[in-house]
Amino acid sequence: MSVQDLVIVDGLIISNFSRAVFEDMRKGGLAAANCTCCVWENFEETMRNIARWNRFFKDNTDLITPVRTTADVMAAKKAGKTGIILGFQNISAFEDQIGYVKLFKDCGVGIAQMAYNTQNFCATGCYESVDRGLSDFGHEIVAEMNRVGIMCDLSHVGSKSSNDVILASKKPVCYSHICPSALKKHPRNKSDEEIKFIVDRGGFVGVTMFPPFLAKGNNSTIEDYVATIDHVVNIAGEEAVGVGTDFTQDQDKAFFDWLCHDKGYARKLVDFQEVVNPAGIRKIGDFGNLPVAMEKAGWSERKIRRVMGENWLRVLKEVWGA
Amino acid sequence: MSVQDLVIVDGLIISNFSRAVFEDMRKGGLAAANCTCCVWENFEETMRNIARWNRFFKDNTDLITPVRTTADVMAAKKAGKTGIILGFQNISAFEDQIGYVKLFKDCGVGIAQMAYNTQNFCATGCYESVDRGLSDFGHEIVAEMNRVGIMCDLSHVGSKSSNDVILASKKPVCYSHICPSALKKHPRNKSDEEIKFIVDRGGFVGVTMFPPFLAKGNNSTIEDYVATIDHVVNIAGEEAVGVGTDFTQDQDKAFFDWLCHDKGYARKLVDFQEVVNPAGIRKIGDFGNLPVAMEKAGWSERKIRRVMGENWLRVLKEVWGA
Repeated sequence: MSVQDLVIVDGLIISNFSRAVFEDMRKGGLAAANCTCCVWENFEETMRNIARWNRFFKDNTDLITPVRTTADVMAAKKAGKTGIILGFQNISAFEDQIGYVKLFKDCGVGIAQMAYNTQNFCATGCYESVDRGLSDFGHEIVAEMNRVGIMCDLSHVGSKSSNDVILASKKPVCYSHICPSALKKHPRNKSDEEIKFIVDRGGFVGVTMFPPFLAKGNNSTIEDYVATIDHVVNIAGEEAVGVGTDFTQDQDKAFFDWLCHDKGYARKLVDFQEVVNPAGIRKIGDFGNLPVAMEKAGWSERKIRRVMGENWLRVLKEVWGA
Repeated sequence: MSVQDLVIVDGLIISNFSRAVFEDMRKGGLAAANCTCCVWENFEETMRNIARWNRFFKDNTDLITPVRTTADVMAAKKAGKTGIILGFQNISAFEDQIGYVKLFKDCGVGIAQMAYNTQNFCATGCYESVDRGLSDFGHEIVAEMNRVGIMCDLSHVGSKSSNDVILASKKPVCYSHICPSALKKHPRNKSDEEIKFIVDRGGFVGVTMFPPFLAKGNNSTIEDYVATIDHVVNIAGEEAVGVGTDFTQDQDKAFFDWLCHDKGYARKLVDFQEVVNPAGIRKIGDFGNLPVAMEKAGWSERKIRRVMGENWLRVLKEVWGA
């Protein structure tokens, strides 16, 4: 099986986006990727980020194209381009305006995380002392996201808030990029029960390879990543699991400092040492090694196809309606 | 000929939008209208206005629907709804960001006036002491509007700036709602030469019935309005002219005060007494009287069809690409 045969979807990339990164996405054969355009930003700053993305689309038409439907993803793949799904890691950009949800949908946002690490108007992040669950306003925001077709992501969200969103949402929700805490205890990782809870309610799990969340940290290999995915597949079944690498390619220390402080500058929440991605998949361009490692691990072609991207497409179609 | 047969397009409505206005649009048989969502507002305020429009769309699905293509307009007509084209009367919402142009296009804006009465970053309005013409940044904005498909409107723009935009734009531009100064001298009215200049370069003219711009002011009748349109048709030909009423239905004095001051609060630019629309077409719901008056004036059915809406559709398709 070659990379050409697969529809590869990466459920989370937060790299320092540039033509070099887009070239690497093509090298890796990505048909689509959820690319972060908001972490701590407010409405206007996020709109400026999207304006910058629109500039990327204009200047790199040979490599990338915006996608708003799964048909767009298939068309991107056919054209030899990577389809970009704009995504939020925090709904700070919605501020206190329900009406902003549709504005962002119209500008290309297809997925949004309900909180990033800490408390916002709607939900509680995974590093907050107490998870108060989904607020009343949060319920209204979930309903509006359902209505316009933006997928709720819960990777960095606390356990109670996550459960509240899973129960409140009328469309499938996801952990786009998590690791199982059964393999490594970490506030960002999810228990087998949490994985089962989301999947039993029609939800989806993307598995990350961000080294601090893997059992062997910076010493992990692509085989360890495949084994981690397999742990999740064994709980969730092979139709509700995908890839969400969390590639931070070309990001510098200042960026990680910004990520690791509440609101980008307030109290420090967590500290990541130098991040070394698993051997065999250090860069986005190495994506083609992943199905090879899956094959070596004895995965069936069907399972590889599904986990590499077809599952993501199926669930996104349910949320987006096309 | 009945209203049902015509595709009626109103090139400018700046009413106090509400369900009552939308009901009147249906009574008038409008297939589409350019509805103002920005006059003095900045980026965020305008986005909030559009969010409010999206709320209107959700709450009044039986009466109105957003339109982004001329096919959308025809579908709206078929469904017995009025298609709403979101429009700016000022590009204040673009602020200093070229990238904002596409964000607004994506949120439904199909037409935007390059200046409202005074000077902005790009162009000079018709009440400014000196018209400095289109700025360098304005040239970039015109190119971006061409690229993404937002029509340049010049109704409230000064003569030199208008000519600069007419020459700079690679897509047709318009005066969406003007009267001929040959019939009434007014800073907002356009000379026969100006009308000829825009039309000779592929542009378009919508004729308003805003009483201060009509020869007989508040004593005008629907027949006077038809005669005013005819004056423009005699210069521009029957394929480059349409209707742009400038209905200010249900607006109050505070609204006119806001319109008549620079930036909504600074120096007073002009003063309008109480506005009484022409007898026979006082309200949007009276739109059906217009083709009847045209028929009475001896217009051919073809000319009526064109001026009532088909011409607008043709030129909008050229700008929007669909």
